[in-house]
Amino acid sequence: MGKVTSVSPFAPASLAKLPVIEGVAFATAEAGIRYKNRTDLLLTVLAEGTSVAGVLTQSKTASAPVLACRKHLKKGTARALVVNSGNANAFTGKKGAEAVDITVTHAADAVVCKPHEVFVASTGVIGEPLDAEKFAHLLADLAKRAEPDAFEAAARAIMTTDTFPKLAMRTALIGDVEVTINGFCKGAGMIAPDMATMLCFIFTDAAISSDALQELLAEHVQTTFNCMTVDGDTSTSDTCLMFATGAAETRGQKPVTKANSKKLQAFSEALHDLMRDLAIQVAKDGEGVSKFVTFEITGAKSWHAARTIALACANSPILKTAIAGEDPNWGRVVMAVGKSGEAADRDKLTIWFGPHCVARDGERAEEYDEKTVAAYMKNAEIVIRADVGVGKAAARVWTCDLTHEYVSINADYRS
Amino acid sequence: MGKVTSVSPFAPASLAKLPVIEGVAFATAEAGIRYKNRTDLLLTVLAEGTSVAGVLTQSKTASAPVLACRKHLKKGTARALVVNSGNANAFTGKKGAEAVDITVTHAADAVVCKPHEVFVASTGVIGEPLDAEKFAHLLADLAKRAEPDAFEAAARAIMTTDTFPKLAMRTALIGDVEVTINGFCKGAGMIAPDMATMLCFIFTDAAISSDALQELLAEHVQTTFNCMTVDGDTSTSDTCLMFATGAAETRGQKPVTKANSKKLQAFSEALHDLMRDLAIQVAKDGEGVSKFVTFEITGAKSWHAARTIALACANSPILKTAIAGEDPNWGRVVMAVGKSGEAADRDKLTIWFGPHCVARDGERAEEYDEKTVAAYMKNAEIVIRADVGVGKAAARVWTCDLTHEYVSINADYRS
Repeated sequence: MGKVTSVSPFAPASLAKLPVIEGVAFATAEAGIRYKNRTDLLLTVLAEGTSVAGVLTQSKTASAPVLACRKHLKKGTARALVVNSGNANAFTGKKGAEAVDITVTHAADAVVCKPHEVFVASTGVIGEPLDAEKFAHLLADLAKRAEPDAFEAAARAIMTTDTFPKLAMRTALIGDVEVTINGFCKGAGMIAPDMATMLCFIFTDAAISSDALQELLAEHVQTTFNCMTVDGDTSTSDTCLMFATGAAETRGQKPVTKANSKKLQAFSEALHDLMRDLAIQVAKDGEGVSKFVTFEITGAKSWHAARTIALACANSPILKTAIAGEDPNWGRVVMAVGKSGEAADRDKLTIWFGPHCVARDGERAEEYDEKTVAAYMKNAEIVIRADVGVGKAAARVWTCDLTHEYVSINADYRS
Repeated sequence: MGKVTSVSPFAPASLAKLPVIEGVAFATAEAGIRYKNRTDLLLTVLAEGTSVAGVLTQSKTASAPVLACRKHLKKGTARALVVNSGNANAFTGKKGAEAVDITVTHAADAVVCKPHEVFVASTGVIGEPLDAEKFAHLLADLAKRAEPDAFEAAARAIMTTDTFPKLAMRTALIGDVEVTINGFCKGAGMIAPDMATMLCFIFTDAAISSDALQELLAEHVQTTFNCMTVDGDTSTSDTCLMFATGAAETRGQKPVTKANSKKLQAFSEALHDLMRDLAIQVAKDGEGVSKFVTFEITGAKSWHAARTIALACANSPILKTAIAGEDPNWGRVVMAVGKSGEAADRDKLTIWFGPHCVARDGERAEEYDEKTVAAYMKNAEIVIRADVGVGKAAARVWTCDLTHEYVSINADYRS
C-alpha cells in the first residue's frame, strides 16, 4: 500500500495567497458548535448589488440550508453568506428550518439587508438539531470586524475532516478590464466522518448578471465538481455558490448580462480552470488518500456516456483498492467499463496505465509487461485511460484510492 | 471493528447434503488451470431432453462463455455443463471464443450431443488467455466417471475466494408428484481478488419447458441475486443457469409448459426460496465480511424504486464502513436514501436499526438512545429498515459490511 499520513501527501507546501476582492469581506469565530479551539463560523459580507448564482445537491434528503439557498437564489442578489461547520443542519425537521430563519434574521440585521439576500450553508453531523441561538448573536460583531484580506481564514473556518484548506484564484480580461476570481471549498469525503458536504464559494469583482453567472456556474460544475468523487456518496448539503460584486464596473468594465457573450469567454475559461483546480484539491484530500487518480475515457458516444464510464471506474471499490495496493489490475478496468451500462465495444477496448498500453483491441497488449506497469503504479499520481471504441466523445474524472485509512476514518471514528 | 477471520464467520457448521437428482451427474478434476492441489474443472452430464434457462451478466464486456451461453440458450436443451475456476476467459479476444469452441467440441464428443447442448462458464482472472487444450482432453474421462451424488464436490470445484461452498435444496409438489430442486453457487465479491464472477447452477427433476423455466428464473433472479451485493461491482461473467431433466415424468408428473400455470405455484415458491437462500449465502461470504446486513425499504413508489434505494444503502462505502465500526450512524442512511435519485419524502422518512426506531417523520426519534442502538450494532446480523413515505412498495437487499479485510484482500493481493 502507498504510505498514508494523517495529512494528505498532496497538501500544498504553501497555500495560495488570494488577493482582496472589492466588496467582499470575511470574519470568523470560534462558536463551539462542535469543535473546540478552532473557528467554525464564517460571515461573509458582500457589497450592495452583488449578484449570485448557485448549484445545490440533488439529494432527496437535502438539508435545511440547501432549501433556503434554493429559495433565495430566485431573487438573484446577495449581501451575506453565513457558514458553520460541525453540524450539517440536515434531517432536522422543522427545527432545521427554524435554525435557518434565526440565522438569516440575525445576519440580515447585522449587514442591513433583506432576508433573501442572506445565504447559508452548514456542514457536519447529519440529524443533530442545530442550535442557531448559540452563534446567531455573534453575527453582529462579525459584521463589524469583517475584513477583505481573509480568504485563508474563511477557508479554514468551513473545514471538517479536510487536512488542508483549498484555495484558488484566477484573473481574466472582460473587455480590457482585468477582473479577479477567488474561490475556496471544503470536502474530504462526499461525507466526511459523521459529516456531510462539499461546499464551495467563489467570488469575483466582475459585473455579471445573476442569470449569466448561473449559466456559467451550472455549465462548469458539470465538468469540474461533478467529475470528482471520493466514495460516490452524494451529500445532503453540497452547495456551490458564486458571488459577483460588480466592483470592476468602477474600473470601466461594462456589465455583462448574457453568458454566451464573447466578452465573457476569457472569464468563463478562467472560472472553469479555477473550479477544476478546487475539484482536484478535494480529490487530493480524499479520506485516507494515498494516490491521486485520473480516469480518462475516450471513444464514447457522448460526454455523458464517457463520464458515466469514468465514474464507474472511479467509484469501483475493487478497482480503487487495487490502485491502493499498487497493483496494475487492468481486468478491473474492463469490469468497470462493462458495468457502467454505457455503450462500449469489448473488442475495440484499449487501456493505458500512464504511458503503458496494457490492453488493445479487446485483449491484453502484446507489449504488456507486468513489471513495467507495476513500477508505474508506485507513482503518487496515476492516470488510467480507456478508449471504448464506439464514438468520439471524451471525459475525465478525478478521484483517490480506497485505503485501510479510509475504512479506519469511517469505521472506527467513534470508537 | 467486528472480528474478521479468514473463513467467514457465517460459514455453516455443516453443509447441506443434497439428494441425487435423476439425470444429473458430476465429475471434477484438478486441471491445474491456476490453482494447485484443488479441483478446478467440473463436468455436469445431463439426461437427454433436459430443458435449460439462463440469466447472464448485463456487462458490456461480457466474457466469451457468457456469449456462448446466450447463443445456446436459444435452442432450449442441455446435455452438458463445463465450468472451470482460475481463469474467467473474459477480455481474451478471439482466443476466448476459440477456447470456448475447443471446450464445447470436446464436451459434445464426451457426452455425445450437439454443440448447442453444451453450456460453459469460467471464473477467475480477467484478461489472461485461457488455454483450453490444458483441460479439454480430460472431459472424455470425466464423462465416464460422472456420478449423481456429488453436489458438494461440484460446488467446491467452482470456488475462487469463497471461504465455503454454497449449497441449497428444496422440494415441491407439481400436481401430486414431489420434485426436487438443488442448487449451488459461488461468489465472494462481485469480483474476488483478481477474479470475477457470481456463478449459480440449479437442477431439478421436474418436467418443465425451457420457456416456462426461463420465465420463472428471470423473475426470481430479480428479487434474489439481483438484491444481493458485496461491493456493487458487476462481473463480466455472472451466470445463472437452470436445468430441468424431466425425470419426474416417469413418476407421473405431467409436463408443464407455461410459467403461470397454477400447477407450478409451489414449485415457483420453492425455487424463489432456494435462490434467496443462495444469494444470502453469497452476501455472508462477502470478502472481508464481519457483519451480514439486510436493508429493508418500505413506503416507496414501486418495487424498483425501493430496490434502488436499498442498493444505494447497501453499496455506500461510508455506510458500510460505519456498520463495520459498529457505529449506529443513521445519518448515513439519510444520505444514501437521498442520493438514490428515487422519490422519498424527507419529512416522512422513518428509520429503524433492528427493533429500534432512530428517526421518525424527518428527524431524530425522541426515544433514540445512542447506547441502546450502539449495543444492537454489536450483533453479527444487522437489519436496517427505512420507510420513505411516498408509497406502498417495498424491497429487501442483502449485503455485508466494508472492512479493513476487504481492502487487504483486494489491495494487497499480489504483494
